[in-house]
Amino acid sequence: MAESETGGDDARCVRLSAERAQALLADVDTLLFDCDGVLWRGETAVSGAPETLTALRARGKRLGFITNNSSKTREAYAEKLRRLGFGGPAGPGASPEVFGTAYCTALYLRQHLTGPPAPKAYVLGSAALAAELEAVGVACVGVGPDPLHGDGPGAWLEAPLEPGVRAVVVGFDPHFSYMKLTKAVRYLQQPNCLLVGTNMDNRLPLENGCFIAGTGCLVRAVEMAAQRQADIIGKPSRFIFDCVSQEYGINPERTVMVGDRLDTDILLGVTCGLKTILTLTGVSTLGDVKSNQESDCMSKRKMVPDFYVDSIADLLPALQG
Amino acid sequence: MAESETGGDDARCVRLSAERAQALLADVDTLLFDCDGVLWRGETAVSGAPETLTALRARGKRLGFITNNSSKTREAYAEKLRRLGFGGPAGPGASPEVFGTAYCTALYLRQHLTGPPAPKAYVLGSAALAAELEAVGVACVGVGPDPLHGDGPGAWLEAPLEPGVRAVVVGFDPHFSYMKLTKAVRYLQQPNCLLVGTNMDNRLPLENGCFIAGTGCLVRAVEMAAQRQADIIGKPSRFIFDCVSQEYGINPERTVMVGDRLDTDILLGVTCGLKTILTLTGVSTLGDVKSNQESDCMSKRKMVPDFYVDSIADLLPALQG
Repeated sequence: MAESETGGDDARCVRLSAERAQALLADVDTLLFDCDGVLWRGETAVSGAPETLTALRARGKRLGFITNNSSKTREAYAEKLRRLGFGGPAGPGASPEVFGTAYCTALYLRQHLTGPPAPKAYVLGSAALAAELEAVGVACVGVGPDPLHGDGPGAWLEAPLEPGVRAVVVGFDPHFSYMKLTKAVRYLQQPNCLLVGTNMDNRLPLENGCFIAGTGCLVRAVEMAAQRQADIIGKPSRFIFDCVSQEYGINPERTVMVGDRLDTDILLGVTCGLKTILTLTGVSTLGDVKSNQESDCMSKRKMVPDFYVDSIADLLPALQG
Repeated sequence: MAESETGGDDARCVRLSAERAQALLADVDTLLFDCDGVLWRGETAVSGAPETLTALRARGKRLGFITNNSSKTREAYAEKLRRLGFGGPAGPGASPEVFGTAYCTALYLRQHLTGPPAPKAYVLGSAALAAELEAVGVACVGVGPDPLHGDGPGAWLEAPLEPGVRAVVVGFDPHFSYMKLTKAVRYLQQPNCLLVGTNMDNRLPLENGCFIAGTGCLVRAVEMAAQRQADIIGKPSRFIFDCVSQEYGINPERTVMVGDRLDTDILLGVTCGLKTILTLTGVSTLGDVKSNQESDCMSKRKMVPDFYVDSIADLLPALQG
């Protein structure tokens, strides 16, 4: 990356030195952070990350947290932020800073399931996802285990469906089963039934380089069987940014997106006209950036950040100056 | 389709009149049939289809049956053919006519899992698929239900794996679950572990226009999580034809592929240099043919048959003449 490090202002993916960071922060009101791989890994905060956020808050910067994870409610995320030392507003009157796909899916359904009958969704996902949907008035069915019953395709197709389901929502569902896939497809045979996926991440990274299958694998299975394309809520889809923008009243030019994934965080930032910082504490590497920069594929060449840091703790010197 | 019906010899997708059928059959030794949607739908034979096959056998034509369905053994298919009146060899010395993906996957693994240790596969699929694999000496683990156990990702990743698994085989698996997906991906982290899919059908059509999710949905989920591309056994992959070719000693120019799907049966025939007949008793329609003929996509324009019939019973007059 030598050429990038010494590049002029036009070069992309420049190391964010303290000097450059000072200049950048002077032009910025809002910083949006991905969580996993940026602020923490599993239950361990990235070293220096809490102090960085505290310093940003002290400088009057507004912070937002954008996560594709659909298995926690907004409040559960806020609690984790506080528990790991990232601060943030607390108490009933506090304005929430967290935009997870469970919450944003609820906003999407509230917008798209207007008019009678009362909105109801078949949810391949967690109780937390259902809780966010219920909080905006969308009744949820389907959460939890649903193993195969009946002794063949005829019986599988006769399993009772809930009346009035107007959307199939696919999130992270460790109870995903063929039976659930079958039911999802049966609901989706109604052309008016929406198909919504919380995100398309292929993997959910854990600590120590481990990972499990991500929500995208489940969305793809439903899409292929139903021959429908899901509306995707999470990064890099712009809908999740629109949710933040609507609540915060954001000026994209004075906003930074900070993330560890080129194909979600950085692509979202580029798509929405934000400044972008890649942090190397998570999934994507400088090798991935280089490969995108050299790709002959236009969609890959978009996935290049303005700046990179080894860790968001690299912002601290600029804030202490 | 008027222009096709009156088209010259160069035109594709011509209705197979009795006269044309006589000329075609004179140049042909072997007819390969897809089963579901061609010979039968569910447990009901297509009207006139058994008589057609009987007449073809009487004329000395060799018949083969190529199916992507992985949930029956070769013998179970032969029994269904006899039960529905399609005849065929019976008894221990009889030469089998059925090439299903369960059997052909077994051949694939026998070719690719040579040398020690003894071949073992993790099977997302039916007992029949495992039976075909075991018959060629591949030990199978994983068949049957495997619901979620453990209270989070860490526990899911600690579920015991079988030692010595050298392939993950994905077939039609009504017990598919997130737990199985997780295990499949863990086996596939060994770069030497093969990933094999029996077929990529998105749907499995049943009677009366009903369908259930096909094997392709499950293969895609595993591929996406493992970030690997599966080796596919069934149509339109040429491997299944190579299996027939090797056992029958086929001359492609004197062979016809008869099927109801453009994207599997007809594409296989075109790819392997066979003559092709689309029958309209199953999935694809003349509208689909027209759309492929007019497509600007080369891969779609290949999915056009030489001939079409309303049903394979349309061949009868040519055989009775």
